[in-house]
Amino acid sequence: MASPRPTSDHPAEAVTDRARRPGGRSAAVRRRVLDAALAQLVQHGYDSLSIDVVAERSGVHRTTVYRRWRDVGGLLADVLNEASVDAWRPPDTGSLEGDLVAANHEVYAALTTDPVTVALIGASFRSDQAAEALRAFWVDRYDRCADITRRAVERGEIPAGTDSRQLLVAATAPLYHELLLLRAASDADLPERVARSVATAARAGAYAHR
Amino acid sequence: MASPRPTSDHPAEAVTDRARRPGGRSAAVRRRVLDAALAQLVQHGYDSLSIDVVAERSGVHRTTVYRRWRDVGGLLADVLNEASVDAWRPPDTGSLEGDLVAANHEVYAALTTDPVTVALIGASFRSDQAAEALRAFWVDRYDRCADITRRAVERGEIPAGTDSRQLLVAATAPLYHELLLLRAASDADLPERVARSVATAARAGAYAHR
Repeated sequence: MASPRPTSDHPAEAVTDRARRPGGRSAAVRRRVLDAALAQLVQHGYDSLSIDVVAERSGVHRTTVYRRWRDVGGLLADVLNEASVDAWRPPDTGSLEGDLVAANHEVYAALTTDPVTVALIGASFRSDQAAEALRAFWVDRYDRCADITRRAVERGEIPAGTDSRQLLVAATAPLYHELLLLRAASDADLPERVARSVATAARAGAYAHR
Repeated sequence: MASPRPTSDHPAEAVTDRARRPGGRSAAVRRRVLDAALAQLVQHGYDSLSIDVVAERSGVHRTTVYRRWRDVGGLLADVLNEASVDAWRPPDTGSLEGDLVAANHEVYAALTTDPVTVALIGASFRSDQAAEALRAFWVDRYDRCADITRRAVERGEIPAGTDSRQLLVAATAPLYHELLLLRAASDADLPERVARSVATAARAGAYAHR
């Protein structure tokens, strides 16, 4: 599960492609504005965000920023929309447990070492638009992760009829819960321990429809 | 799992006891101030909270509020401390699955129908003091819930060596994740579905130390 972090390190080729297309300039403006909004959020917090500050920081005219994004909610929603347009696929390690361990390591890293992820989640408690965009981001990620469940069923590891969303929420929710809500001390074994539990549970049919 | 809601409906007897003790007046002042802080948070949001507003709303002198609670973080931390001092015990239904279903119904109700719980969780993203107090509240609740695991082990339902905290976080985290972070549509089957999955997983040894 990748974090909702817009990748600033797009492959050069993709950037060039975009720049060549009509709308390339518009895409470049968008990138500057969204980068500025995210940097401002991470460095100075939600309360510091405004159209004026982001315009100033990005060097894009205030009127342009206002017309396109309207307000802070619009900016954050677009940051998350942009983060959704990537080629991320879930890990494919050859076993359910391996896939869940790998996915959980991504979540864990996002929650413990990436200030962007936590800042965007925090912002979702302040802005309904950001909350809705974050929800859409996660729905898309859980949908992509359905491959993990499908492959495990095909390998005969878990029962047919296993509910993918239930399995994946079970695998990831304890990480968000421990790290964001319970603010547990960081615990390098957590991603693997939870992944192993959920793989055991899935093999026992815990997420199969009855 | 009860919500972190201070019970305003203390049994009359307990209130009288307190009023009789030395410090009864102080306890009454505290109650007025904390009730005012919580009502302000729920009705007008975190940004509206201040020592002045809470003093005005509670009818307690500003200097008293400032001296005792210092700032908004101090007020929210004390709201949560007060919520921790109750006689809540986990449900005891005679089976692991029954206990988890009952506990999850409490969490679900707190997250879907009680604005206090969600407001306090939101505030924990704004105030480190509130976050620390919420963490302590939950640690205490999960500790109390260890009875659920102990009884299930004693009944022979699940393996000795089952980790209670892992089991209980697995049982509750998906509710917080779906309702607070993923903002899923409310789903009356969620508490029971997750509880049943976790009971199945626990019986299969998913939370037993290896």
